[in-house]
Amino acid sequence: MPHDELTPYLRDRWSPRVFDPTHELADDELRLLLQAARWSPSAGNTQRWAFLVGRRGDATFTTIQEQLSKGNAGWVANVSAVVVVCFQTGAAPEDQETPYLDLAEYDAGQTAAHLTVQAASMGLHVHQFAGFDHEGVAAAFGVPDHWRVATGVAIGRVGDPATSEVHEKKRSERKPLEEIAYAGSWGTPFA
Amino acid sequence: MPHDELTPYLRDRWSPRVFDPTHELADDELRLLLQAARWSPSAGNTQRWAFLVGRRGDATFTTIQEQLSKGNAGWVANVSAVVVVCFQTGAAPEDQETPYLDLAEYDAGQTAAHLTVQAASMGLHVHQFAGFDHEGVAAAFGVPDHWRVATGVAIGRVGDPATSEVHEKKRSERKPLEEIAYAGSWGTPFA
Repeated sequence: MPHDELTPYLRDRWSPRVFDPTHELADDELRLLLQAARWSPSAGNTQRWAFLVGRRGDATFTTIQEQLSKGNAGWVANVSAVVVVCFQTGAAPEDQETPYLDLAEYDAGQTAAHLTVQAASMGLHVHQFAGFDHEGVAAAFGVPDHWRVATGVAIGRVGDPATSEVHEKKRSERKPLEEIAYAGSWGTPFA
Repeated sequence: MPHDELTPYLRDRWSPRVFDPTHELADDELRLLLQAARWSPSAGNTQRWAFLVGRRGDATFTTIQEQLSKGNAGWVANVSAVVVVCFQTGAAPEDQETPYLDLAEYDAGQTAAHLTVQAASMGLHVHQFAGFDHEGVAAAFGVPDHWRVATGVAIGRVGDPATSEVHEKKRSERKPLEEIAYAGSWGTPFA
């Protein structure tokens, strides 16, 4: 099945590489996107996530740009904001206990998905990327050793491929459901 | 800010403990929920996820039930389906390369979030849980050593607390945005 039957926010979601360089996110729009991430669920409500937030042209955005791979530097320059998603990987000095630490990365992924759905509801698109110097970002912003930098979440309005120097990729495919959904035992397709 | 301004699928999302034990998921509804997970994004489109799918009363569901913590056994008995989310943690014997393995857990979290949003669009609720014997589930279903069992995703229709023996918890709170969203440097609140 293609995604025709999914709810529109999921059905129409994809990861563009051509963004509108004239689009700007209003303050309250960016805050609302972060609120979507903030209200995401987490194991035991531990919320082991944090976000570095840059808007195109500001100092945070520019610092992130300096760490981008060649393949991402071009298109990311045109997005309206980048949110770098971080999650906790170890105990802080003050922590007595660290329950659910092994699900912090999983929950970080959920925050990005919730932000993405909120963006869709606002007519925006998101393109997550991992092609950047993670250690460079951690050093530039002073991310503590017991945290890890996961991804960059680029947010903006889809641009016109005809006026862009960036090559637009086709929507990607997926493995068939039979290869990923099992019942009874591992590898037995869910019917 | 509370979640008032979020898009309804996120705004009205919460994790109930009281589900309607008479509700049944149709085949095509369950498949559609899995399609939402399937079409979730992943690093380099690597899709390092798999799902064990049980519907209340079937063998897969019952096997999952046998591994539940005491705290979860009661309420999970009334949900319509449970999807156990797994992700790849190491190279398979046939793998030459394993790019983005370090984001497999993050992407697994995204699949659960996408499934949750699809459920919301269908008038259903989701309650993810980690309180079960992960090794027991892995053994019962034959999950390979280079995969990890992450969470159970319970899906169903919200029940009536007045007729349930399960105690319903209040909606949980969240850390303030200032504590999780930074700009300029780690810990400096995004304004």
